[in-house]
Amino acid sequence: MAKIPNTVLFSSKHLLVLSLALNVSLILRMLYEGEERHNNISCHKNGTDFDTKTHSSIIKSRLVMASSTSSLANSTCTDLKARSNRIINLDHGNPTVYEKFWRQTGDKTNIIIRGWQSMSYFADVSNICWFLVPEFAKEVMRLHRLVGNAVTEGRYIVVGTGSSQLFLAALYALSPSHANEPINVVCAAPYYSSYPTMTDYLKSGLYKWGGDANSYEKDGPYIELITSPNNPDGHVRTSMVNRSQGLLVHDLAYYWPQYTPISFPADNDLTLFTLSKITGHAGSRIGWALVKDKEVAKKMTKFIELNSIGVSKDSQLRAAKVLSAVSDSCEQENSQEGESFFEFSHKLMTKRWKQLREVVNRGELFSLPQFSPAFCNFFNQVLEPQPAFVWLKCEGNVEDCGSFLREHKILTRSGKQFGVSTKYVRISLLDTDESFTQFLDRLSSIKSM
Amino acid sequence: MAKIPNTVLFSSKHLLVLSLALNVSLILRMLYEGEERHNNISCHKNGTDFDTKTHSSIIKSRLVMASSTSSLANSTCTDLKARSNRIINLDHGNPTVYEKFWRQTGDKTNIIIRGWQSMSYFADVSNICWFLVPEFAKEVMRLHRLVGNAVTEGRYIVVGTGSSQLFLAALYALSPSHANEPINVVCAAPYYSSYPTMTDYLKSGLYKWGGDANSYEKDGPYIELITSPNNPDGHVRTSMVNRSQGLLVHDLAYYWPQYTPISFPADNDLTLFTLSKITGHAGSRIGWALVKDKEVAKKMTKFIELNSIGVSKDSQLRAAKVLSAVSDSCEQENSQEGESFFEFSHKLMTKRWKQLREVVNRGELFSLPQFSPAFCNFFNQVLEPQPAFVWLKCEGNVEDCGSFLREHKILTRSGKQFGVSTKYVRISLLDTDESFTQFLDRLSSIKSM
Repeated sequence: MAKIPNTVLFSSKHLLVLSLALNVSLILRMLYEGEERHNNISCHKNGTDFDTKTHSSIIKSRLVMASSTSSLANSTCTDLKARSNRIINLDHGNPTVYEKFWRQTGDKTNIIIRGWQSMSYFADVSNICWFLVPEFAKEVMRLHRLVGNAVTEGRYIVVGTGSSQLFLAALYALSPSHANEPINVVCAAPYYSSYPTMTDYLKSGLYKWGGDANSYEKDGPYIELITSPNNPDGHVRTSMVNRSQGLLVHDLAYYWPQYTPISFPADNDLTLFTLSKITGHAGSRIGWALVKDKEVAKKMTKFIELNSIGVSKDSQLRAAKVLSAVSDSCEQENSQEGESFFEFSHKLMTKRWKQLREVVNRGELFSLPQFSPAFCNFFNQVLEPQPAFVWLKCEGNVEDCGSFLREHKILTRSGKQFGVSTKYVRISLLDTDESFTQFLDRLSSIKSM
Repeated sequence: MAKIPNTVLFSSKHLLVLSLALNVSLILRMLYEGEERHNNISCHKNGTDFDTKTHSSIIKSRLVMASSTSSLANSTCTDLKARSNRIINLDHGNPTVYEKFWRQTGDKTNIIIRGWQSMSYFADVSNICWFLVPEFAKEVMRLHRLVGNAVTEGRYIVVGTGSSQLFLAALYALSPSHANEPINVVCAAPYYSSYPTMTDYLKSGLYKWGGDANSYEKDGPYIELITSPNNPDGHVRTSMVNRSQGLLVHDLAYYWPQYTPISFPADNDLTLFTLSKITGHAGSRIGWALVKDKEVAKKMTKFIELNSIGVSKDSQLRAAKVLSAVSDSCEQENSQEGESFFEFSHKLMTKRWKQLREVVNRGELFSLPQFSPAFCNFFNQVLEPQPAFVWLKCEGNVEDCGSFLREHKILTRSGKQFGVSTKYVRISLLDTDESFTQFLDRLSSIKSM
């Protein structure tokens, strides 16, 4: 892995070679990406913490990047400056890291949709979820069976515009319709930073954010969110409140072999999954829920009907294609077809965690969570968790780790947004190779607080 | 147009020919449609008024249809019985009528999405609506300019998962954040049947349904919805309340040349459009808003971020392709390329309205709204409105027109759901040729109440 120190120790020749290589790679990338030019810029805004300040700094960083790639004749100093000035935005969890795998698959994973296809609102009128495309449902069940991470027998599948829409649908479906006051929605801190805002932004009379499940002591019914492995800290979780009147929503977005050992098939009342964190296709906005109770599945479907009259069929068809390719790659693992998607993604996460631990352990400024290895039924061996996010702690006197890293032009998400101390930050490990490498370089260059 | 009386007056030979023709056409249709088999069934549930009773009758009608198409050797009597027993569901506004046009375009309107494309959450970080795909935005502006139905200069485009999501986003964006009580949302009756439920289903503390705008007399700020041409009755509308503190949302889903003369480019603060009613691509769930105020555009974007973290890129790319084909067809109108999309769809609506008026005027049981012709800037001639829905009134003693038509196996939506008398029903004119023809046959067979 190439390291770029922040003091200039190179000769002009080294710099020229480096600059040319950088320019050529960037220009090739721009040309290759064609219509995707806006999608793969690694300095972009966060999905939930957008503010004018962040936005303008992102635009500036894009302009710097653009000017640095405008011509092969640029001076090497400008490039190096641009590179060291670049803001590395690892605040969001944009899963662009998997793009490489999909490029390798060539035309096999292309999808063609004809002008007259999928025009109707309806996909399958015999299904409670009448907008669920049967091919997509089939591939969801196939993949769960193959991976062994969730029981699908006796479950209703409800498709959503990402798992966000399904999260809201679940709150609607589980809330009592005629209660005197809204039901409390709780989750143990650190919890996914968007849960409180998503729960409260419409000031619903059906449900309201009830805070940290660790300290929740009220009587009566409540909804508990269980994210496992947890976003942000990667730990495996079970219910924290554990009382009889709890309605549980399991968010298993990261319960896939590349992130955590698959110990058992999840067998919950209501479980959410999302395409974006499995295969990286965040732009398609596809998620699904496995629901045990028929009435809950009906109410969730009703929510999506009132919210958006269904879910894009184009994206469901594409998701079916992509999930099918993942399953095919697992089934053909031992043939000549190359490594499976989960082998590819597991290796990649292993490498990133190894490199990251090396950099962090070199000093005493930061610390990382420790995880216990467990047997993974999918890979048939004992493995360590390797979460999609780094839950980094600033050791020593730094109280606001996010602000400290921002001084070094690394954008992260503060622990405060996850309901805990500002000594913690969440950092995405799913960004491009380029961003990850630059992040490690930047992190290893920090010598003191 | 073939008419099938409800008493058997045919000879066996006639019936055999009819049956064979029906079977062949249905089998060909099934074969041709391939993977689309679930999408184009003309007996399906309504987008907003789904109940178990309707659902089970739909399933039954599907089974009848399936059995009638299973073999060319079926007896003619069974076919005719199946045909006359078939429930014609014209409750919803599923725009499958346009499928024929898109089939005629052949491969030109296919879209190919590669496995690695459009993976990121982000589409254009320099845009307030950061998930808006630039190609799609470009085609939206191009089509509005060509048709002349909306001012796009100085407007922000916000894309949504259908215009339903944008309707909710608009309510969120226009509601005062810190008011003591929710703002009233009003619309003149007859209003779109889903407005009250969509406004109230989450019991929001920000906004609430305030009823018929015709009788709204409260002081203070309010949100008024103006659907023009109106769903259900097809009339051109302006604001009804007309007070200084009104925040207006214009729903112009049907302000396109096939439905109504384009008299002027709409120049409102906040206007909603939807792909489904223009081109028929309801399954893609794409709508857009043209927004004058930057802060409103930001808040609408925030709503969609919290609701579904953006909008399917696959569907935006497809919508760009489809809208581009519509614009191309208008620009090439005088060349050898065949008729434009709006010529095709206008002709089709003209034909259906003509046939319908003939059937209705033959008796005295039903009546239809009357419309004033107006000059259409797009077609450059005086034309009559020809709405997407029929607002049918049962004359005489029938008080519940919906129940009366249901006895004749025609499913419609009752006037009650639009805030007016049950003497009225709304009937979709956008269903398949087969459904429309059967509907006319059934209607013309009703001789007395």
